[in-house]
Amino acid sequence: MAEYIDFALVRAAHERIRSHIHRTPVITCAALDRRVDARLFFKCENLQKAGAFKSRGACNAVFSLSDEEARRGVATHSSGNHAAALARAAALRGVPAHIVMPANSRRIKIDAVREYGGQVTLCEPTLAAREETAARVMRETGAVLIHPYDDERIIAGQATATVELLEQVPDLDVIIAPVGGGGLLSGTLIAAKHLRPIARVLAAEPQLADDAYRGWRAGHFVPAERTDTIADGLRTSLGRLTFPIIMDLVDDILLASEEAIVEATRMLLQRAKTVVEASAAVPLAALLENEADLHGRRVGIILSGGNLDLDDLPWK
Amino acid sequence: MAEYIDFALVRAAHERIRSHIHRTPVITCAALDRRVDARLFFKCENLQKAGAFKSRGACNAVFSLSDEEARRGVATHSSGNHAAALARAAALRGVPAHIVMPANSRRIKIDAVREYGGQVTLCEPTLAAREETAARVMRETGAVLIHPYDDERIIAGQATATVELLEQVPDLDVIIAPVGGGGLLSGTLIAAKHLRPIARVLAAEPQLADDAYRGWRAGHFVPAERTDTIADGLRTSLGRLTFPIIMDLVDDILLASEEAIVEATRMLLQRAKTVVEASAAVPLAALLENEADLHGRRVGIILSGGNLDLDDLPWK
Repeated sequence: MAEYIDFALVRAAHERIRSHIHRTPVITCAALDRRVDARLFFKCENLQKAGAFKSRGACNAVFSLSDEEARRGVATHSSGNHAAALARAAALRGVPAHIVMPANSRRIKIDAVREYGGQVTLCEPTLAAREETAARVMRETGAVLIHPYDDERIIAGQATATVELLEQVPDLDVIIAPVGGGGLLSGTLIAAKHLRPIARVLAAEPQLADDAYRGWRAGHFVPAERTDTIADGLRTSLGRLTFPIIMDLVDDILLASEEAIVEATRMLLQRAKTVVEASAAVPLAALLENEADLHGRRVGIILSGGNLDLDDLPWK
Repeated sequence: MAEYIDFALVRAAHERIRSHIHRTPVITCAALDRRVDARLFFKCENLQKAGAFKSRGACNAVFSLSDEEARRGVATHSSGNHAAALARAAALRGVPAHIVMPANSRRIKIDAVREYGGQVTLCEPTLAAREETAARVMRETGAVLIHPYDDERIIAGQATATVELLEQVPDLDVIIAPVGGGGLLSGTLIAAKHLRPIARVLAAEPQLADDAYRGWRAGHFVPAERTDTIADGLRTSLGRLTFPIIMDLVDDILLASEEAIVEATRMLLQRAKTVVEASAAVPLAALLENEADLHGRRVGIILSGGNLDLDDLPWK
């Protein structure tokens, strides 16, 4: 693993961000355990600052910058949780955050970025327009790009969720993280394979955004074809950095249908009484649908985020 | 207080029920603290077994019965959380539970009682029909009535939530509980006034079901006039046992409008990421609307239950 990201970077990240993030709790739910015939330990990143694990990587990236770099401000393009987390991290360091967001982003996401003091630039909702607009903003402001997942500092930051999970529940047999761009999954793999090599690490991915699954099966990078899964945090393709880490280290990738994702989101609210966004429910959804052979096993699940739109619930 | 319920009964209740209930966590939320300018500590009875504090009293009552009494089974009339909690407690003791429910009860409430093995008898949705049907069921089965709140065993059981809260956060300045029939509030008062007499204990009540408030102001019992508040767990009037406890010991009763109750329910989901039913949000709602002079104070709030109907959210 040293060829990817040294675990020392994860330790350093944890020290760097500790005062800026929550050490989130781990919860259990007997009703869900019965449902999947395993002992589930949910790492509540839905309770993280800004409502998602993204605060870990964003804080690590922003507080890794030299004073001179930081002074120029940071920039990214994102319609989701990375945008808010980066705006918050930049505000904590007292530097500007320039966030390029597609004009069709959810109003609550745009508002969250602005609440944290982020400077929002809206653009057409295409990847080309996002990258072009971000490039222009960086040219005009000199701001430093903080990529949402394809960045060592981001991956090392996201890894700290699993470091904490394994401190809180040391004897896990399995750890499952959702996969979109692969920042969280890469961090999970690096932390888990270092701290508890005996544990299997599984990824959970929406069937409608199964690029990681297809790439892993094919042995080469496969881009995401569709971007319409309800798990809107998982629509992106893997990155240059995250792809090889995942190919080498992941033990299995489980798929979840849209129906199971909706059901799992609802079950987490109804039974565990915890509010998650659809992307965070994908690991539970995958367990509902797959014969994962977890009978009685101790399974850690990263509940990646809690920014559910209460006016547009997925089961409506 | 000895004239009401001896604190030794609360200690005994806690021992009796400990293995049948959750020691629920206490959560905090910086965004809500900022909103009300106080430090809020939420005792998560929404995470309690059967989704509400009612499991405490129901377990205490059922496990207080002699073997001979228990063998006859238990009965109650309730459209809400007491019904499910009593069915669960009876199942744990291996005895029948006869639950009379109004025919217009929510389907999920009826299903919950049946899931726990309760025997449901539906009746007309009037108090007279409920009492009459319950009396008939008890005559026919010999079952013992377990009243939802006007029962020492129930009050002593509900008091254990505050015993735990004060173990978890010993230095509270204020404790707030919602009030309907007054079982939870009576228990909260008895525990708090014994364990931390310096703390003020406030009740929070819907404006549309303000019988406790009006009775407290008038100095005599006043029945509830309306039963249409969205906080459906708080529609009942105080009882013979709970009325004098509350009159003597409560420090203040704060009212909450329907609008504030809806807003507070939503805030708890959106900001604290925890699922509560409307009744549980009434204390926060009361703080949103009242000048309660809590600047910087440490305030414990009993989040009484989490059985929110996800298909019929109050903000729709």
